[in-house]
Amino acid sequence: MEVKIARTAGFCWGVRRTVDKVMEVADQRPGAVVTLGPIIHNPQAVARFEVETAQARGLEVVDGTCPYVKYPQAMAQRLSREGYHVVIVGDANHAEIKGVVSYAEGPCTVVKPGGPIPEIQAKKVAVIAQTTCIGADFERVVGALAVRHKEVRAVNTICNDTEERQADARALAREVDAVVVVGGKNSANTRHLAEICRAIQPLTWHVETEAELQAAWFAGCRTVGISAGASTPDWVVEGVADWLGRR
Amino acid sequence: MEVKIARTAGFCWGVRRTVDKVMEVADQRPGAVVTLGPIIHNPQAVARFEVETAQARGLEVVDGTCPYVKYPQAMAQRLSREGYHVVIVGDANHAEIKGVVSYAEGPCTVVKPGGPIPEIQAKKVAVIAQTTCIGADFERVVGALAVRHKEVRAVNTICNDTEERQADARALAREVDAVVVVGGKNSANTRHLAEICRAIQPLTWHVETEAELQAAWFAGCRTVGISAGASTPDWVVEGVADWLGRR
Repeated sequence: MEVKIARTAGFCWGVRRTVDKVMEVADQRPGAVVTLGPIIHNPQAVARFEVETAQARGLEVVDGTCPYVKYPQAMAQRLSREGYHVVIVGDANHAEIKGVVSYAEGPCTVVKPGGPIPEIQAKKVAVIAQTTCIGADFERVVGALAVRHKEVRAVNTICNDTEERQADARALAREVDAVVVVGGKNSANTRHLAEICRAIQPLTWHVETEAELQAAWFAGCRTVGISAGASTPDWVVEGVADWLGRR
Repeated sequence: MEVKIARTAGFCWGVRRTVDKVMEVADQRPGAVVTLGPIIHNPQAVARFEVETAQARGLEVVDGTCPYVKYPQAMAQRLSREGYHVVIVGDANHAEIKGVVSYAEGPCTVVKPGGPIPEIQAKKVAVIAQTTCIGADFERVVGALAVRHKEVRAVNTICNDTEERQADARALAREVDAVVVVGGKNSANTRHLAEICRAIQPLTWHVETEAELQAAWFAGCRTVGISAGASTPDWVVEGVADWLGRR
């Protein structure tokens, strides 16, 4: 089969940066290197106390948090200090949002994308977004709050990677006979990519590695597209591409 | 006919305040009292230079601008000083907006409600509204800009009077056999009220005074509703109500 890999498949800028940092630390520092949870979905802010404990014990702490993920944390802190009620458009159960919430030093409300917008008693409201928030969801919440409150300050903390990756996956799904989306079954962004591709090309498969692939899935297919989540390493994507290229 | 007058027909808070002020000045000050244009649609900011000339000549100047109209002017000045590109949702040809624009000390764009939102080259955008702007129009512009720019600061400068007045007119139009909307033919808010009522009750008439009313218009009507623009004096509304009550 001819294999087409989406331009933006695999590691986003921030993930690559963090993984490189861990590799560098492991190469240069003597002794054990430990990450606080899986490095990619690491809720840096939530783990702050653990980090502090580690520092108190004299351990060296390397902060690998993506700057795009740190930005809404800094904004939550700054805007709540300036007297704004902080509204975060995102998933309250996601580690990233737990981190952002932990930085707010005043009232803070998490609004689920597509969900109801609760009544908030505040004159000044600041709105920030999960880095993976879809633009339309942020737009809806900011607009609705702008007519309810005296002042709304919206800081666009969305990372373009998600939308670009989804746009690329959508374009790819339109031009192939089947799609393979590579990435963790527990990765929300990978699952979302698979949903997007499946809506266009019903012959879409979500796998973690090539070990799951079955030749029968691709009967009659001449071209197959590959997309991958932001936390999927290149070597996993390449393993899948090799397997498909040999069919 | 039974005559029902909309709760919010006639002078809004700001117009009443300004008209009272002129009356007070006329009563207390010796000599001539002159207004800079019709006191109600007076573009205070645009006339600033004329005011300054008047002051230089030793004339006493009384500022009767509605505080709700002054507020977006002050915001345009403050936010442009803070480095925001100022966006005003409103009618660029309206005196109020000409006034607000004159206070911006940096780049400023007027976006027509319902119209296209031009591309703006700016990281920080502040959005304010014409006091008579409809909430949904402000919501749309703020939302759209929030995803385009790094920071959007929306200050809700909408005066509730317009929406309350329109909601009352809408409710009234639903329960009567005909509607009379009283106010200047050149008054945008009165014309808009007439449009709203006509969409619900086709038997809607827009008049400036009872002199225009014709008995034939109300043949077979048992109830008639009255709505009036924010700049329509009570005595004009009462003249219309008296005429209709005698039919």
